Amino acid sequence: MTSGHLISERLLQAAAALKEANAEALLVSNLVNIRYLTGFTGSNALLIVLPDRFVFWTDPRYTLQAKAEVGAETLIERGPLYLVAEKWLARRRFRAVGFERESLRFDQFEILTKRLKLLPVSGLVERIRMVKSADEIEKIRAAVRTNSKAFDLAVKSVKAGMTESAFAGLIDYRMRQAGAEGTAFETIVSSGTRTALPHARPDNTPLAAGGLVLVDMGARQDGYTSDMTRMLHLGEPKRKTREVYAAVLEAQLAAIDAVRPGIAASKVDGVARGVLERHGWADQFVHSTGHGLGLEIHEDPRIGKKSKARLEAGMVITIEPGVYLEGWGGIRIEDTVVVTASGCEVLTPTPKGLRIVNSTVT
Amino acid sequence: MTSGHLISERLLQAAAALKEANAEALLVSNLVNIRYLTGFTGSNALLIVLPDRFVFWTDPRYTLQAKAEVGAETLIERGPLYLVAEKWLARRRFRAVGFERESLRFDQFEILTKRLKLLPVSGLVERIRMVKSADEIEKIRAAVRTNSKAFDLAVKSVKAGMTESAFAGLIDYRMRQAGAEGTAFETIVSSGTRTALPHARPDNTPLAAGGLVLVDMGARQDGYTSDMTRMLHLGEPKRKTREVYAAVLEAQLAAIDAVRPGIAASKVDGVARGVLERHGWADQFVHSTGHGLGLEIHEDPRIGKKSKARLEAGMVITIEPGVYLEGWGGIRIEDTVVVTASGCEVLTPTPKGLRIVNSTVT
Repeated sequence: MTSGHLISERLLQAAAALKEANAEALLVSNLVNIRYLTGFTGSNALLIVLPDRFVFWTDPRYTLQAKAEVGAETLIERGPLYLVAEKWLARRRFRAVGFERESLRFDQFEILTKRLKLLPVSGLVERIRMVKSADEIEKIRAAVRTNSKAFDLAVKSVKAGMTESAFAGLIDYRMRQAGAEGTAFETIVSSGTRTALPHARPDNTPLAAGGLVLVDMGARQDGYTSDMTRMLHLGEPKRKTREVYAAVLEAQLAAIDAVRPGIAASKVDGVARGVLERHGWADQFVHSTGHGLGLEIHEDPRIGKKSKARLEAGMVITIEPGVYLEGWGGIRIEDTVVVTASGCEVLTPTPKGLRIVNSTVT
Repeated sequence: MTSGHLISERLLQAAAALKEANAEALLVSNLVNIRYLTGFTGSNALLIVLPDRFVFWTDPRYTLQAKAEVGAETLIERGPLYLVAEKWLARRRFRAVGFERESLRFDQFEILTKRLKLLPVSGLVERIRMVKSADEIEKIRAAVRTNSKAFDLAVKSVKAGMTESAFAGLIDYRMRQAGAEGTAFETIVSSGTRTALPHARPDNTPLAAGGLVLVDMGARQDGYTSDMTRMLHLGEPKRKTREVYAAVLEAQLAAIDAVRPGIAASKVDGVARGVLERHGWADQFVHSTGHGLGLEIHEDPRIGKKSKARLEAGMVITIEPGVYLEGWGGIRIEDTVVVTASGCEVLTPTPKGLRIVNSTVT
C-alpha cells in the first residue's frame, strides 16, 4: 500500500473544502474531477483525497498512462475499484468519508455504505473548477480559436444537397485538422424546420436551398472545450427570418453586456429573456441563456432563471439565447465569454451576422 | 395527468421482468434503456413502466422531438424530472417501485427515497437488450459496413507525418460521409510506442515512417454501434512485429471459432487467453476479450475471465484480444460478430492481415 502522493495546489483546495464539509476523506468518483485534480485522462479511476496526500487507483489498461500522467505511485487493481477503495477506507476507520452525491451511482453507494460512515457532499470539486486559472483560460481560448477556424473552413464547402450529417462530419474533421483532439460534444447541424429542435441530431436530411442551417459546435483541445452556435442561410432569407434573427442577436448582445463580476447569473438570463419578451418570443426561448464550460462542456454556473450563482472573474460561460417556432424553424446565437475583473471578454472571434451562403445545388 | 401509453412489445417484456422482480412499477432512468423502450433519443427523460402502460416525461426542449419519437401523450415538465416522478408515484402509493441500481445517482435516490418504497433492480432492461432482434442486427450490420468502408477510404490517405488526431478526424469524416450519424466512441488512433496504451487518445504525435498505427473505431448509425480494431504499419515491419501480430491474430481467430450459443463467455475469453499464454504474452493481454454492443458500445455480455454469461443466438459481441509491451508497442485485432443458431457470423468484412502502408513522408 502506497503512502500516497504529495499534494498539489488543486488538491490542497479540495482538502480545504473537505475540512469545511466536515469530512476526513473525500472519495472522488467523477472522472473529470479526477482529471482536474490529478491529470489522469483515462476512463476508470478512483481517488481518495486526504488532508495532506491522495491515493489513486486505476486498472491495468492504464498502467503506463497513469504513470505518465499522475506519477509513479499509482495503484493498479484488477476488478471493481470501489471494492478496493472500500477496503482501504474501512481498514483505516475514517469517521466521515465524503462522496460525490451527484456522481456516485446507487450500486457503488451500496458497496461503500456497508462499513463506512459516509457523508454526501455536493459539487465540492466542481466549485473549485468554476473559476479558471490563467492557464485554463488560455486552453479554452485555444479551443475557441480552433472552433472558429474550423467553422470558417467548413462553411466554404457547404452547399445545398449536402446532408446535415456530412456537414457535421466536415466540421469535425476541420476541427481535428486545426488542432482539436476531438469535439467537445456531438456537433449539431440541423436545417429547415428541424432547426426548431434545439438539440437536433444531424441526420441524412439534405441542406435545402433557401433554408436555414443551425451549427452548434465545440472543440476539445488539451482537454478543454469551446462552444459556439451560428446560423447559415442558403440563399436570401425571408423577412421573418431576418426579424427573428435580429431579436435573438439583440438578446445575445444585451446578455453579454450584462456579464460582469458580482452579477447574479439569473439576472444575465433575465436580460436575454427580457429582450425576447419585448419581441413577443419569450415562450419560444425554451432553455436557459448559458452555462459554464471548461473540462466539461456543461459546468457550473448555469445561466438560467433559477440559478443561484453570482458571476466571478475567471468564470468562462456561454451566452446562447434562442427562439424556436414549431413548423418554421429556430435561431440560436452562442459565444464563449470569460468574466474579467471589469466585465467580460468575448472569446469567440466568428462574426455574428446571419451568414448567407450561395445556395446552388450540386 | 395522462392515463399513459399503450404498451409495446419491448415494454411488455420489461413489464414481465418487473413482475419477476416483485416490483409494481419500474422507474427507468438510464437514457439508453428509455430509448430502447420508447424510441426517445433526447438527453433528458424519465419513464415509469407499469404492467399495462407507461408514463414518459421530458423537458420543453424536447416537446417536438418527443411527440415525433414517443407519441402524442408525452408529458413535458420544466425543472427536475425526478421530483415530478416522485410526486406521481407517491400519490399512487405503489408498494414497491423498482429503480435501476446501476444508473440512478445518489442525489436522485435521495429524492425518491423520502416517501417511496424503493426496490433496487439490476440490469432488468439491459438483459432484454442483450439478445438483438433481426431488425437490430441489420442496423448493427449497417453500422459495421459503414465502419469498414470508411476505414478503407481513410487508409488510402494515410501517410507518415500526418498526426494521430488528424487521421482520427479523417476516419470520423469518412464515417459520416458513408452514412454514420457519428462515431460510436472516440476513435482511437495511436502510433509507435503509444500503441502500448490500450485506450490512448489520439494526439498531435505524427505517424512515423517505419512504425505501427493502431485504429480502434466504431460507427453509430440509426442509433446502433459497430466496433473494429485494425493495425497498420508504415513501411516494412520488423520480425517481432510480425510475430506479435501473428500471435494476436491466432488468439482472435481461435476465440471467434469458439463463439456459439450455450458457451460460457468466460470460456471464449479463456480460448484467446490460452493462445497468448502459449506464446508467452498472457500477462501482456491486460483487458478482456470482448463485450456486447448495440445501442451502446459496451453492453452485456462481457467476454472476460469473470463473466457469468452464456452466449445466446442474437447476441452481438466483439472479439478483440491484444498484447501491449511497454516501450515497444501494442497489437489488437477486433471484429464485431453475431452469435447464430449454430455458431457465429463475423460481421466485419475488413481483411485481418497487418496492413502495410507506403511510408513516404510528405
